[in-house]
Amino acid sequence: MISVDDAQCLVLEQAIALPAERVELSEAIGLVLAEDVTSDIDSPPWDKSIVDGFAVVATDLATGKAELEIIEEVMAGDVPRRQLSRGQATRIMTGAPTPVGCEAVVMVEQTIMVEGVSDGPPGRVRIQTDKFAAGQNILRRAAAMKRGDKVLAAGTLIRPSEIGLLAEVGRSQVLVHRRPTVAVLATGNEIIACDRNPGPGQIRNSNGPMLGALAKRAECIVRDLGIASDTQESLERHVREGLQADVLVLSGGVSAGVLDLVPGVLAAHDVEQVFYKVNVKPGKPIWFGVLNREGFRRLVFGLPGNPVSSLVCFELFVRPALRQLAGNRDAQPGRQWARLSKSHSVRGTRDTYHPAILREEDAGRTVEPVAWRGSADLRALAEANSLALFPGGDRTFEPGEQLAVYPL
Amino acid sequence: MISVDDAQCLVLEQAIALPAERVELSEAIGLVLAEDVTSDIDSPPWDKSIVDGFAVVATDLATGKAELEIIEEVMAGDVPRRQLSRGQATRIMTGAPTPVGCEAVVMVEQTIMVEGVSDGPPGRVRIQTDKFAAGQNILRRAAAMKRGDKVLAAGTLIRPSEIGLLAEVGRSQVLVHRRPTVAVLATGNEIIACDRNPGPGQIRNSNGPMLGALAKRAECIVRDLGIASDTQESLERHVREGLQADVLVLSGGVSAGVLDLVPGVLAAHDVEQVFYKVNVKPGKPIWFGVLNREGFRRLVFGLPGNPVSSLVCFELFVRPALRQLAGNRDAQPGRQWARLSKSHSVRGTRDTYHPAILREEDAGRTVEPVAWRGSADLRALAEANSLALFPGGDRTFEPGEQLAVYPL
Repeated sequence: MISVDDAQCLVLEQAIALPAERVELSEAIGLVLAEDVTSDIDSPPWDKSIVDGFAVVATDLATGKAELEIIEEVMAGDVPRRQLSRGQATRIMTGAPTPVGCEAVVMVEQTIMVEGVSDGPPGRVRIQTDKFAAGQNILRRAAAMKRGDKVLAAGTLIRPSEIGLLAEVGRSQVLVHRRPTVAVLATGNEIIACDRNPGPGQIRNSNGPMLGALAKRAECIVRDLGIASDTQESLERHVREGLQADVLVLSGGVSAGVLDLVPGVLAAHDVEQVFYKVNVKPGKPIWFGVLNREGFRRLVFGLPGNPVSSLVCFELFVRPALRQLAGNRDAQPGRQWARLSKSHSVRGTRDTYHPAILREEDAGRTVEPVAWRGSADLRALAEANSLALFPGGDRTFEPGEQLAVYPL
Repeated sequence: MISVDDAQCLVLEQAIALPAERVELSEAIGLVLAEDVTSDIDSPPWDKSIVDGFAVVATDLATGKAELEIIEEVMAGDVPRRQLSRGQATRIMTGAPTPVGCEAVVMVEQTIMVEGVSDGPPGRVRIQTDKFAAGQNILRRAAAMKRGDKVLAAGTLIRPSEIGLLAEVGRSQVLVHRRPTVAVLATGNEIIACDRNPGPGQIRNSNGPMLGALAKRAECIVRDLGIASDTQESLERHVREGLQADVLVLSGGVSAGVLDLVPGVLAAHDVEQVFYKVNVKPGKPIWFGVLNREGFRRLVFGLPGNPVSSLVCFELFVRPALRQLAGNRDAQPGRQWARLSKSHSVRGTRDTYHPAILREEDAGRTVEPVAWRGSADLRALAEANSLALFPGGDRTFEPGEQLAVYPL
């Protein structure tokens, strides 16, 4: 049986970033750049004032005090037309270009208008400041970026800050990796839709909606295929439909049970098995395969039917695949470290990913495994915000021991 | 000038959870429950096998070895019809109900079929196991939850795990707080749309797209109102439209500049100022007001025009408001602690929220302020993944000092 690390490598080998497409900037959030982006402007585009105030010549403020003639007013969107000389000031707005000759800007709060003129030239301003330095309150042209600079690299995840930066450099459209499509299929004769009332031996489909929600939160387009019963015909029909998507996620049908027809149906559709079973708890009977055709590839995950197993397998194997398909460079699950807050015993040789509560405390991060009753316990999962990794081996972990934790 | 804490309290006093509405479960992800949810089922609904294997009577396995007659096969979705007696076994699938008389289940891996029968009764099975305990591999009815148990409380954020749990208890629709609507308006004569080329004195609208993306990621419905010029008429028209949304976010127009008409236009629309200016860097000139009408309330944020100020104010004030409107109980920004990785000097009395890189390292979390050149530097912001809080006062923070950090 292969290890989690080896299984993740095998998955990531098969998950190749999807082709690029051009989208509107407003649709690009959460996607990954498929091009380097260079700036078409200097930023700031001019020497600019970073406060509302008065542009001055430095020598006038040698003592910190001056009374100056206001020669011009530069509003946002204006450009100064007059050069500053000694004894003169230009009223200037935050962000506006400084006039030629300007050596500093004094904040409006350190000034008083004189001669009763309150809204600009002609008029005089009295300045009194105890901190004055040449260059103050001016941001020089191109201080943040120069025209031609590469400001974002292909492979960058587009967050709100990147949206702002892309807008600043004029990219109303951007080239991004296409959003992965994910088909979700629950299997099993015992499974019924969640709007029905279970009869004897029946349980509602909780995995389908949960896996769909996970894929949707991972920036994918989700197609919920509903439930396939354990018949060749039903499975074939659903699998054929599911193989239209980049990724087909099945839940149930891959353990050692008599009616586990899934692997056979997948093989009949040319999906080749890459691995079956991983040395992990819960989630051991995970199945992973690939369909390779001229021009496209499909990834197929057969997840165990129990909800907690299913979620753990999604986090360990499906999410990294989706991240890499979407063009992310760092696709592995994000690991943090935390100290165990109460003793916890594990048994068996498999590494256990236990639902847990990760807490930010003033003294550092702690993690507390939630009480749970086996891999069907969605209620325990709803209390958790992370998975704590307990390495395999029969032992008791003591409070204060450091553990790897994967936030959910 | 009020403190960040006081300003956050004033904002949260005004942000009342929006009314509840019923939505399809598939649309509920990221929203907040507006009702307590009780289970309509026991989970598991029966004593069930947690492995594929053979249900047995405990005394038959006293030595760990037995050869038993297979009396029945219980597939997923089946219910057992025959009671187990000594000398007998029932073949059983993971998740299926155990038969009456069953005291344990032996995994199929620890069994061998005899008499050449491979698919069920009539037939015999030989068992050999070195670890056997009565009750093994059976999960008792209602171990995870009982019918009538409250499984989720109003105020719970619906994540994929909650989607799974809601599906399990039959909630194909749920009552959630309505998604906040947010209108975003950039103001200023110097601002042009991002698909245009800036002329002298002009800069592109980066705040509008960025703030829209932030609100969208905060689960809001966003209306981008574009750009208002600094005229009474343009501002009035856009503000009137913006006040249709639960929250109006303006960027620019609230500093001490001559053309800052925004407060007057808002007052004319009965938006009452709650506060103006907060003792924070960047972001000091933030304006917050409220429109109260019979049956509804609007929150209006006037953010500084500089992108970094704008983002900091969104994180400190707008996001908590949006979270509380959406029904979240804990609306404050999520704070973490990290050790400073290089020395950093700050000046002035205001607390500074500095764009920074938060890193998870084996030795703990570190934070490194990014180099930035003032509050217009979106490029620095794109390098950052967090805001590091440097308390006010002229001083140099040394490597290893612990700081509060707010992930972006």
